[in-house]
Amino acid sequence: METIVSVKNERVKMWKKLQTKKGREKVGTYLIEGFHLIDEAIKNKALILEVMLSEDAKEMVATSLPENKMVLVSQEVSKQLSETQTTQGIFAVVKKNSVPEEPVLEKPYLFLDNVQDPGNLGTMIRTADAAGFGGVVLGKGTVDLYNNKVIRSMQGSHFHLPIYQDDLSDWFELFQNAGFPVYGTELNELAVSYRDITPQSKFAVVMGNEGNGMSKELLEKTTKNLYIPIMGQAESLNVAVAAGILMFALTK
Amino acid sequence: METIVSVKNERVKMWKKLQTKKGREKVGTYLIEGFHLIDEAIKNKALILEVMLSEDAKEMVATSLPENKMVLVSQEVSKQLSETQTTQGIFAVVKKNSVPEEPVLEKPYLFLDNVQDPGNLGTMIRTADAAGFGGVVLGKGTVDLYNNKVIRSMQGSHFHLPIYQDDLSDWFELFQNAGFPVYGTELNELAVSYRDITPQSKFAVVMGNEGNGMSKELLEKTTKNLYIPIMGQAESLNVAVAAGILMFALTK
Repeated sequence: METIVSVKNERVKMWKKLQTKKGREKVGTYLIEGFHLIDEAIKNKALILEVMLSEDAKEMVATSLPENKMVLVSQEVSKQLSETQTTQGIFAVVKKNSVPEEPVLEKPYLFLDNVQDPGNLGTMIRTADAAGFGGVVLGKGTVDLYNNKVIRSMQGSHFHLPIYQDDLSDWFELFQNAGFPVYGTELNELAVSYRDITPQSKFAVVMGNEGNGMSKELLEKTTKNLYIPIMGQAESLNVAVAAGILMFALTK
Repeated sequence: METIVSVKNERVKMWKKLQTKKGREKVGTYLIEGFHLIDEAIKNKALILEVMLSEDAKEMVATSLPENKMVLVSQEVSKQLSETQTTQGIFAVVKKNSVPEEPVLEKPYLFLDNVQDPGNLGTMIRTADAAGFGGVVLGKGTVDLYNNKVIRSMQGSHFHLPIYQDDLSDWFELFQNAGFPVYGTELNELAVSYRDITPQSKFAVVMGNEGNGMSKELLEKTTKNLYIPIMGQAESLNVAVAAGILMFALTK
């Protein structure tokens, strides 16, 4: 197995470029870290280009990865690649997901408009997966799917369901032309409580920006706007919690 | 108004001690940061002992705080006090909440057993507030309520509802002796889907540790265990999302 010791090695530099959005976009790959995610990548047949492991991690590996994709790295290199506090010393370069060109609208979809916080984005995708959603669409301004914090909070869910990065207006049309409602989440005079909606299996629900909600342009196109009644004195809910409440309550 | 310029000033040192649990426990006070939280503290009549503000923040203050509690601090001091990336330059020392000795059991309660992540803890308390819960009880091993990240994620909810730090076994007894169910959240053969529970107003729901769930000892004492059916391929839900789904679904 090839060994890389120096942090100045050219390949280490290339791997580190994958820690930025620009670097990932240039080559179409991204980094994952830790045994769980690498197992998920293998199980879901993601295209793994390289696996970098430290001496410690090597002893714990029990996967069927081909030897020629593995690179042994020093503690120093491992430290450079890691974006967690306590690294397991195993990383992989993975090709970005491809998505079906013709989306299947047999299940509910989650639309995300300008979601900024990586933890929120990842958690919502994980929850959409758990709720049996058919896919997620990331609209304009939403944080990069392959951001390391997003990857960590998704816990592998991006391997389970298609995630599109696209213009949400087009998806609104797609759903509405097919006769499926697109539910916005913005409190206005016409908004209805989510509790008044009959659970169903074909619809989309839109979550907006943490501070400013959905864009006005999209808001005008929603089939209906939903709100979650606040019973206490809190002013609002965390967006990922709100998304969880809605996804589970609206789904049949 | 008094002015403190040097980070070596004795009072700055005292304030900085409030950034640790030990320091907070010694004096029974804690730090809050930002206009929103300070407004919430005032609105909810929390006991504010001191307000520290930078020159910039001073110009934006429009509160009724007594002059003698205000201290002007330099940029350097402000930086030392801040635990955020972009500080608003306003801080306060607040006396820890006191809770009613005789809890009112007219509303649902959230019990937290060994929750480790400050963001999760804060988000769950904020959600309990939004769901109209009567109180929250933090059991053994749960992260400190006055941890700065907890404070930030609560967004002031700790001013809205009583939060006890106590032995959860005692609270199980209290509820069960009063005839109210205590719902655990652990998948076992007797667990029932939360969708099969009729919404009600007097009960407690327990959320456990992020990795290990509830303690075995408490698990044995629950009235029933609930689970959230996972429809997709995700292995689990984030604990704060799960808590949100349950709190809103179980409440009448």
